[in-house]
Amino acid sequence: MKTIKPLREKKNTAILLIHCPDRQGILATVTEFLNNNRGNIIYLDQHVDREEHIFYMRVEWELEYFAIPRNKIGEYFNTLIGQPLKMTWKLDFSEEVPRMALFVSKMPHCLFDILARYTAGEWDVEIPLIISNHELLKPVAERFGVEFFHIPVNKDNKEEQESRELELLKKYDIDFIVLARYMQILSDSFVQQYPNRIINIHHSFLPAFAGAKPYHAAHDRGVKIIGATSHYVTSRLDGGPIIEQDVTRCSHFDTVQNLIRKGRDLEKIVLSQAVYKHLQRKILVYNNRTVVFN
Amino acid sequence: MKTIKPLREKKNTAILLIHCPDRQGILATVTEFLNNNRGNIIYLDQHVDREEHIFYMRVEWELEYFAIPRNKIGEYFNTLIGQPLKMTWKLDFSEEVPRMALFVSKMPHCLFDILARYTAGEWDVEIPLIISNHELLKPVAERFGVEFFHIPVNKDNKEEQESRELELLKKYDIDFIVLARYMQILSDSFVQQYPNRIINIHHSFLPAFAGAKPYHAAHDRGVKIIGATSHYVTSRLDGGPIIEQDVTRCSHFDTVQNLIRKGRDLEKIVLSQAVYKHLQRKILVYNNRTVVFN
Amino acid sequence: MKTIKPLREKKNTAILLIHCPDRQGILATVTEFLNNNRGNIIYLDQHVDREEHIFYMRVEWELEYFAIPRNKIGEYFNTLIGQPLKMTWKLDFSEEVPRMALFVSKMPHCLFDILARYTAGEWDVEIPLIISNHELLKPVAERFGVEFFHIPVNKDNKEEQESRELELLKKYDIDFIVLARYMQILSDSFVQQYPNRIINIHHSFLPAFAGAKPYHAAHDRGVKIIGATSHYVTSRLDGGPIIEQDVTRCSHFDTVQNLIRKGRDLEKIVLSQAVYKHLQRKILVYNNRTVVFN
Amino acid sequence: MKTIKPLREKKNTAILLIHCPDRQGILATVTEFLNNNRGNIIYLDQHVDREEHIFYMRVEWELEYFAIPRNKIGEYFNTLIGQPLKMTWKLDFSEEVPRMALFVSKMPHCLFDILARYTAGEWDVEIPLIISNHELLKPVAERFGVEFFHIPVNKDNKEEQESRELELLKKYDIDFIVLARYMQILSDSFVQQYPNRIINIHHSFLPAFAGAKPYHAAHDRGVKIIGATSHYVTSRLDGGPIIEQDVTRCSHFDTVQNLIRKGRDLEKIVLSQAVYKHLQRKILVYNNRTVVFN
Repeated sequence: MKTIKPLREKKNTAILLIHCPDRQGILATVTEFLNNNRGNIIYLDQHVDREEHIFYMRVEWELEYFAIPRNKIGEYFNTLIGQPLKMTWKLDFSEEVPRMALFVSKMPHCLFDILARYTAGEWDVEIPLIISNHELLKPVAERFGVEFFHIPVNKDNKEEQESRELELLKKYDIDFIVLARYMQILSDSFVQQYPNRIINIHHSFLPAFAGAKPYHAAHDRGVKIIGATSHYVTSRLDGGPIIEQDVTRCSHFDTVQNLIRKGRDLEKIVLSQAVYKHLQRKILVYNNRTVVFN
Repeated sequence: MKTIKPLREKKNTAILLIHCPDRQGILATVTEFLNNNRGNIIYLDQHVDREEHIFYMRVEWELEYFAIPRNKIGEYFNTLIGQPLKMTWKLDFSEEVPRMALFVSKMPHCLFDILARYTAGEWDVEIPLIISNHELLKPVAERFGVEFFHIPVNKDNKEEQESRELELLKKYDIDFIVLARYMQILSDSFVQQYPNRIINIHHSFLPAFAGAKPYHAAHDRGVKIIGATSHYVTSRLDGGPIIEQDVTRCSHFDTVQNLIRKGRDLEKIVLSQAVYKHLQRKILVYNNRTVVFN
Repeated sequence: MKTIKPLREKKNTAILLIHCPDRQGILATVTEFLNNNRGNIIYLDQHVDREEHIFYMRVEWELEYFAIPRNKIGEYFNTLIGQPLKMTWKLDFSEEVPRMALFVSKMPHCLFDILARYTAGEWDVEIPLIISNHELLKPVAERFGVEFFHIPVNKDNKEEQESRELELLKKYDIDFIVLARYMQILSDSFVQQYPNRIINIHHSFLPAFAGAKPYHAAHDRGVKIIGATSHYVTSRLDGGPIIEQDVTRCSHFDTVQNLIRKGRDLEKIVLSQAVYKHLQRKILVYNNRTVVFN
Repeated sequence: MKTIKPLREKKNTAILLIHCPDRQGILATVTEFLNNNRGNIIYLDQHVDREEHIFYMRVEWELEYFAIPRNKIGEYFNTLIGQPLKMTWKLDFSEEVPRMALFVSKMPHCLFDILARYTAGEWDVEIPLIISNHELLKPVAERFGVEFFHIPVNKDNKEEQESRELELLKKYDIDFIVLARYMQILSDSFVQQYPNRIINIHHSFLPAFAGAKPYHAAHDRGVKIIGATSHYVTSRLDGGPIIEQDVTRCSHFDTVQNLIRKGRDLEKIVLSQAVYKHLQRKILVYNNRTVVFN
């Protein structure tokens, strides 16, 4: 299905995400660099972690009158500012639409939510393929016009199947992966190919109830609130940097089935909020934590 | 698209919703009636409004061994209990799947959310048709395999077009209507055909910002929280009995566009929660307010 | 300080909390017993756990015209209903104001919140004494006119000091204990004297971050929401039945000090809500979980 | 009662709040001014309203090595930056502890909450006096060692009594006023003496239920969520710039009395959060809206 409404007209901008050791004058240095070269800043936010002395910044500016040619911005910035100030930085352009792969298993709620936003033009993203270890959701992919690859995984074929997946991801030029209730654990070597570029949704308020069957565990413990957590995937199971969390109330009235039902709404919204922030290039990761700009 | 997973096996049950003047012994009378006739109660909740002296109750029981034939239950109950206790009551059977009509305009987020739940088998409902005053969302309806009727409405043709709509609703044997961001005001005579059977979503925390452009109004007022409200439609604009509300935080950072974006997620979840409660026959209306059972 | 405003005029009522194996007719049996003896029911709520087949109920009725003398109600109820239906039940009278002991250490926020409610007449309770392992909060106790006992505890004197505490609790005829950020772990033998009658506040969203320094742990993990949990104390550290939980948002912006500051407000409100429910006799405990009636 | 624990050691800092028409380079100009004069920045946040083209900023820096003498900072800043950039700005020093007056009537919950924080050393504030139109809460003031003035107000004596209040506020050198459920409407001429320096708590989710008896109105309307709103007082009743809002769920179960009870906790927390932000000098007002920095 084609996008049902056109995306809003976008400005042609550059986005810079920075972190570096804090010191006087970084903010002035970066904003002057942009101002002096006629880069009209349309977004600027910064944060200083005053315990760890780290400076974080996101700045976005219009390219129209910017004096430095687009393909030279990175080089100039690095030479003049990035290297001298020991910055870790990433430069993106709003014109380059990120390409997302979706991994799913049998549960459709997150998949539907993402494809609905995609189709409705809520997000600036391309979703060229869906990979699943089950065939169940193939009809959903077809109706939304997204290619679907059924790649069953078990203990014995995991390495081989992950190789196939990686090939597909390369072939389709994928920038980042969203695990939309994909019930498989990715190998470390797979994860290392996409550092801070695999977003998972865990169906609990992490670090409570990491691992399998969190709603059953929540019911057993008799909690009064359940949650969902989206995070970047690292080699630590359910231990990667948290992007977004949300919760909802429950009570003695709620069976495990009720918790699962209520949780579905949490999961899909929390996952989509994390994907949105990622697409907006508003997330910085440091020390297994995130800075998520407004 | 067919439902992608089968509904859970349902028990064959009867559901009774009651309200009446409060007096001693109602609860005992009703439960004895069911127990004595071998109706295994699987849900019972009741509420007494001790200011207005009204008794509210929802009870659900299995029909398998129930002594009274299904088509006689209403008559027996009314004669033995309903009339003597001056009850307003409604009897439903879990086997009778309610039939919903969807009214939409141009915004797809609530439509997608409902069709996704429908397709995923989250809800026990039939959705045979979608009516819209615009053609924009026709492709969405088609992909989900639901009939779509384009019925443009303006000041001059409203009466005539509502007549067409009412015919369709009758033809398709519709039980209740969901206005999924349908941007038209229904006439009183239309509304009176479906009392407490038209569910609307208003994109504000009612009674704040009733009427048009609530996100603009919220932005102007500088609120720190925005909301969404689902309610039954009555002749009072945005004044019907409230079923569900939810809110999310905002700040000086949020432009009107941001509020609209955040609001979409609220709207679709709040509307779907209201529809779910309606489908569960868990809502009672009295004095323009709702009792919504757990 | 005397109560600054008089309590609302209270009705003279009896309150029955029940749980028992579920079977047909319990609700009818209990309500008929009360109706037949002219007990005007002013509150009734019940819950059936249909997985574990347990029936839970809270019922409150006026004693004014009740046919059974107050001191015989328990005996009659047990003989006629409790024993035959294998009920665990507890009978209370609204006239009997519960007596609470407060245990504190150095942090005053929960103490102030409780004493403010007490003084303002928000709660129907007597607080004859405060016990602390530090002297710091003695002036607070004095200003509110509550006796304060300084009982320092260390590894070597714990048994002896707990004996002193138990003596005081008996002397002052204490019904239940509230640990208002009391930073000591009570011994098992102490806890067993007050089963489901010691309420603690833990400064995290349990089961996440049990044990010491939860705000530091939350900060390290980079969570986006922090919480507080009130629970009955059992021999399992931070593992007793949860009564109430609440959460608040945090972000990369929040230092540990900020989390502690935000957490204080959560802690005092969550603890006081749990105490209120306990005072209302609205909590039932079964299988290390609570049923908390509305 | 003296503060029961010493305040954390404070750094000696200057705080600048700025708003002005947006243009390139403001941020660089301000930060360079501070850096060049050896002002170590410990907080910086800024916001640009890109619709109204207004730049907002809060910056805080250490005075220890700052090159400009404290009593000249304002003059230098204004000459070199403020005037040229058409800034509205305000300079504060962390050493200058703000002086707050409390206005109360009969309800003690907000009063207790504020006095508890004051006594506990949570806030950097002096509270030299409490003014009330009733005598009821005098004992509370006395126990906390704060002077209490009983100034009854009615239609006939309002002007005269407000004059007495204004005299007291001047005598006690009051910087700002907190209306802690003070049930009187201040005259316009009074309000104009303390622009954006009178903080009120309204017991509803404004703009819903402005005016008297909001909990009764909320109950009548059958809302599912109630709220509280703190705002600066202007000549528009309940219409001033909103500082903070919060909400809690309610249901058909809740009587007006229950709403009032639940609302008390909201009111006191929301009011105290607003006061905290004001004390932190983190609030900017523009166009009847607030920018509240983190």
